[in-house]
Amino acid sequence: MQDRIHTADAEPGDDVTVAGWVHEIRDLGGIAFLILRDSTGKIQIKFEKDEMDEELVDTGLGVSRESVVSVSGAVEEEPRAPTGVEITPESVEIVAPADPELPLDPSGKVDADLSTRLDNRTLDLRKDDVQAVFEIRSEILRAVREQFREFSCTEITTPKIVATGTEGGTELFPITYFGEEAFMNQSPQLFKQLIAGSNVERVFEIGPIFRAEEHNTPRHLNEATSIDFEGAFCDQNDAMDVVEGVVKAAYEAIAENCADELEALGLEDEFEVPEEAFPRISYEEAIERINATGELDEQLVWGDDLPTEGEKALGDDVGGHYFITDWPSEIKPFYIKDHDDDDQLSTGFDLMHPRMELVSGGQREHRHEKLIEGFEQQGLDPEQFEYYTKMFKYGMPPHAGFGLGGERLIMTILGLDNIREAVLFPRDRQRLSP
Amino acid sequence: MQDRIHTADAEPGDDVTVAGWVHEIRDLGGIAFLILRDSTGKIQIKFEKDEMDEELVDTGLGVSRESVVSVSGAVEEEPRAPTGVEITPESVEIVAPADPELPLDPSGKVDADLSTRLDNRTLDLRKDDVQAVFEIRSEILRAVREQFREFSCTEITTPKIVATGTEGGTELFPITYFGEEAFMNQSPQLFKQLIAGSNVERVFEIGPIFRAEEHNTPRHLNEATSIDFEGAFCDQNDAMDVVEGVVKAAYEAIAENCADELEALGLEDEFEVPEEAFPRISYEEAIERINATGELDEQLVWGDDLPTEGEKALGDDVGGHYFITDWPSEIKPFYIKDHDDDDQLSTGFDLMHPRMELVSGGQREHRHEKLIEGFEQQGLDPEQFEYYTKMFKYGMPPHAGFGLGGERLIMTILGLDNIREAVLFPRDRQRLSP
Repeated sequence: MQDRIHTADAEPGDDVTVAGWVHEIRDLGGIAFLILRDSTGKIQIKFEKDEMDEELVDTGLGVSRESVVSVSGAVEEEPRAPTGVEITPESVEIVAPADPELPLDPSGKVDADLSTRLDNRTLDLRKDDVQAVFEIRSEILRAVREQFREFSCTEITTPKIVATGTEGGTELFPITYFGEEAFMNQSPQLFKQLIAGSNVERVFEIGPIFRAEEHNTPRHLNEATSIDFEGAFCDQNDAMDVVEGVVKAAYEAIAENCADELEALGLEDEFEVPEEAFPRISYEEAIERINATGELDEQLVWGDDLPTEGEKALGDDVGGHYFITDWPSEIKPFYIKDHDDDDQLSTGFDLMHPRMELVSGGQREHRHEKLIEGFEQQGLDPEQFEYYTKMFKYGMPPHAGFGLGGERLIMTILGLDNIREAVLFPRDRQRLSP
Repeated sequence: MQDRIHTADAEPGDDVTVAGWVHEIRDLGGIAFLILRDSTGKIQIKFEKDEMDEELVDTGLGVSRESVVSVSGAVEEEPRAPTGVEITPESVEIVAPADPELPLDPSGKVDADLSTRLDNRTLDLRKDDVQAVFEIRSEILRAVREQFREFSCTEITTPKIVATGTEGGTELFPITYFGEEAFMNQSPQLFKQLIAGSNVERVFEIGPIFRAEEHNTPRHLNEATSIDFEGAFCDQNDAMDVVEGVVKAAYEAIAENCADELEALGLEDEFEVPEEAFPRISYEEAIERINATGELDEQLVWGDDLPTEGEKALGDDVGGHYFITDWPSEIKPFYIKDHDDDDQLSTGFDLMHPRMELVSGGQREHRHEKLIEGFEQQGLDPEQFEYYTKMFKYGMPPHAGFGLGGERLIMTILGLDNIREAVLFPRDRQRLSP
């Protein structure tokens, strides 16, 4: 199919073959138009009924919407056509007919609920705005990886089948692995740390994570994309610098390379690249500011986790991305290091978007004996994690990192209502197929 | 840790702080050297025992190998030092001491078997040659994605938790998904086809696949990285063009960007980028040529699958990468389309490296009724795959694609003996941890 060109490449004066989907047929009586759509856009095919071969006219105008057709003919200028050109067809071939009863209308004129859309993703993705989300997703992945490489990171791949979870047995999907019990990994945490402790030093991974959470909300997925970083000889401030760079790189790449997609989403005017440094607000300041908003029924006290309404109030107050730093040690996982001068205060941080948490990170506990204590305090048996802890006996440098939720990043950048709109085939409590 | 610089950046005349692992201590009597190693290389730290503070000397020379130390001092030219410079230390801090009993020697002087290496990857990855494999792996992933984007592909992410396998229930790891039976996906095949049938048209994915194969060989993994492509309005020849471009791009990127890594692997002289077009040999010609080599005890006849020794004989004969095209339909999966003029002959192809198969691909069956027939012939219930087959009723264009084994690509490019050397934490029948 080497001779097919994209509709966007059809230039007046050329004889071309285009192929794509029948987007619409407009019959005005003596003249009629078939609007053909492909990945690059749409083009008008003109049928002058009385002047053209009857069979050609019947074929071209009798075909059902969303059928795949191949059209050969001459491209001419036509200022009244949507793209300024049209094709007068010499031949029309029906490559793949479509059932006239479509479960979903790809022209977007008839709304469909999310469940119907996800059941029929192939049709759903024929809509400009849905396609735009996934073209932007692809661009975000590209830009994020490029930015990690700018930060001297090596890309790694860690296993998704594991013997033990990162934080114990909760929220793990069990697998049968050749008769043995195993799990789908909920985070590359332990593995990326093991690599940061080698000569590779700085690593990133973008890959799937699996969480058997019962939550069924517009911001939770049971299979998600995690954007992970870990760096030796890094502290929490270095990790915050990296994540800030990565998030900004995603926005910048969209502004630079996705003008058409932003327009398809109606975001061309409101899309903004965050220019300012993301403020780094301590947990202590965060609860003071939340209390000062008066949005909560009860005042927060030191040691409380931040409720969703509290995060929302602070997000409105700050008005953009911000970090919350220096959390109480108790709230953060055991592998997050405490401050050297205050063991009630951890080096953990979150990166917040006004709508939700995007990132969790911090400097890691790199001292073997402290790590073992941490497992015990968490109620976990350190023996089960010996494959991990033993490497901390052989020169484990201080290191820091983070995990950034890929779909949450896309969702907040594009203002999507539901995280499922950022995934081709989401997995949740109800949805296992397609 | 903002003031630490890498050893490779230490310039004579500078006062610097470097941090890394104690690679070696060479005590010559009045003078002694600590060789410090980080991700960028090694540097010599000089101790003149009689002229320096006793505590400093004791600390610097008493530290065990593979401990993490931070050293501040003046960089001076020293032609006899391995990198032409050395540091006279003003302070030495032991950041993370290492147990003197190491389970593996990162200097590489003592050989370790693969199992010990995999059990201690953090130490194993402190060896230059092992680090080089994974730096090159990272570069291959970058180059392959860039090449896909050159071919106008959109990067996609498909689910790893699925309700049904690509080719039925064999070789799947079962999961318990909120009380329902589910599986870990063995291939993104069905999902990438569903997206190629939308406006997105050309897609690629690099992600994990899971196969419960009983094979335990140097070329099989139970969790592997699959490099997948699918393109609408593509036939098998277009797909072969794409995979040839992608494989060559990987070689070219290594030649251009990984000189140090090739040297660490001792490949600097023998590494070659394939320049010629990969020959496209029909299955029929392949069996003739294999028979002509006289390497097999029994002559192959049309319809036989190619035995490993046959592939080896042909690989030696061709002497480089080659395609085998036009396979008997019976040998290829049902979703591969037959030639229009001969339904015994499929459009399926394999890309072979002389050592092993790298790729399987072809044009796909895009006609709904033929696809349903294919499921039935395979003994599969089409009802179970309705989420997939129903989209073929709504204008599914002709499309083609392939799956390329990521680890096999790395293994053949670098001449690794065992595919486990191309993965940080391999998963096989025996190995589930780390």
